[in-house]
Amino acid sequence: MLKNFKLIIEYDGSSYHGWQIQRNDSTIQGEIEQRLFTMTGTKVRLIAAGRTDAGVHAFGQVANFFCDTGLTPEILQRGLNSLLPEDIIITSCTQVDKMFHARYNAKSKTYQYRILNRSIPAAICRQYAWFVRKRLDVEAMRSAIVHIIGTHDFKAFEAAGSPRSHTTRCIMEANLIDDCTTGHLVFTIRADGFLRYMVRNIVGTLVDVGFGEITPDGFREILLSKNRGRAGATAPAHGLFLMNVQY
Amino acid sequence: MLKNFKLIIEYDGSSYHGWQIQRNDSTIQGEIEQRLFTMTGTKVRLIAAGRTDAGVHAFGQVANFFCDTGLTPEILQRGLNSLLPEDIIITSCTQVDKMFHARYNAKSKTYQYRILNRSIPAAICRQYAWFVRKRLDVEAMRSAIVHIIGTHDFKAFEAAGSPRSHTTRCIMEANLIDDCTTGHLVFTIRADGFLRYMVRNIVGTLVDVGFGEITPDGFREILLSKNRGRAGATAPAHGLFLMNVQY
Repeated sequence: MLKNFKLIIEYDGSSYHGWQIQRNDSTIQGEIEQRLFTMTGTKVRLIAAGRTDAGVHAFGQVANFFCDTGLTPEILQRGLNSLLPEDIIITSCTQVDKMFHARYNAKSKTYQYRILNRSIPAAICRQYAWFVRKRLDVEAMRSAIVHIIGTHDFKAFEAAGSPRSHTTRCIMEANLIDDCTTGHLVFTIRADGFLRYMVRNIVGTLVDVGFGEITPDGFREILLSKNRGRAGATAPAHGLFLMNVQY
Repeated sequence: MLKNFKLIIEYDGSSYHGWQIQRNDSTIQGEIEQRLFTMTGTKVRLIAAGRTDAGVHAFGQVANFFCDTGLTPEILQRGLNSLLPEDIIITSCTQVDKMFHARYNAKSKTYQYRILNRSIPAAICRQYAWFVRKRLDVEAMRSAIVHIIGTHDFKAFEAAGSPRSHTTRCIMEANLIDDCTTGHLVFTIRADGFLRYMVRNIVGTLVDVGFGEITPDGFREILLSKNRGRAGATAPAHGLFLMNVQY
């Protein structure tokens, strides 16, 4: 009988071509599906809450899959963790209702983007934050962030060439905090959904605000313009973390 | 005219065979000396405060070198940082008195050892802490740590086969703290000097105390026995950080 399993997954995306399975490149989905095949003898398909791009990390990605197996969730979790490379960890495995769908049932997702803003780069943990040498005006960035909270059309921050009919998303939470322990500036954003590159395009544009090249009002105008050409560059992948998914 | 330069160096030791230059393997010292040769045309020799072993990290390694160059410390630092791989960063470069010697003048050095003690390993930052699955009794470990503070013969915690005449060292500070932000247990130790593998052998034995296999009094007896055979295993290199050097 088919059972529905829910995984919570932590991964260091540095060595992967993102979540989604690809023919020739190593991906998170591919690595996990391969181990599930080893354990169950069945080709299963993982459904993820959100497909993270190449180089993006996750503390709490969620995925579900259907499988006719006698293995318990505990055995599946332990087996996967012993078979998977050490940069992918299953932090939780539970059996859930057949109706549970990791993507459709997600009410919101939280991402964090980490920036190291100082004159000298870091050697330790350099793979987990974007190094920005030029001093950022954090207060100006915070004034800009206020404008994205609520429901807006985020077409200006969508990856160029993404053909989506519906580009309106609701941002429930967005803030920029100084993490004294790591020296990172941490941008946290929670929304009911995200367009491709949306967080990284927002961060790239916020950094232009921090440089004084765009005013907080100018940031708002970019959002309202729905014109990707007016927003800043896409921030690099390695500063981005999918923190958790709310159901 | 020969000038004396002092470097402070941060490095992620994951990819290196330690500090000390070797003929065939990549080392921190080798990487920096090679870039100094590129910049100054002179073969210089770095003198480090302490030679970290393969896989050990540093936030504040200190080294000095003599060189007859017209380059300013600022230019040297900027040049080194642009030439070095991104896992080695010169965080400071200054010209110092000719008498300054990074090893002989060091009054004390501080190391930290990070342990991740939980049931599930981590994917993010796994390269910066030792994963210990079995629950540790932190209070017992703290009771044991008290016994190493002060001046003692640390022969029991020296690497087997190290021929040193003098194995007495003075520990000025040693404690074990819960770092809530990372979930790590952080062992900090400051001493006037360290024997080879001393911190990692102390940590390996402390973890046996945490497991209940050695009592805090038993730990003290091991120290007094001066017998390496009685101490625990050497903790892995990747949890260890040279934090800074005091002059």
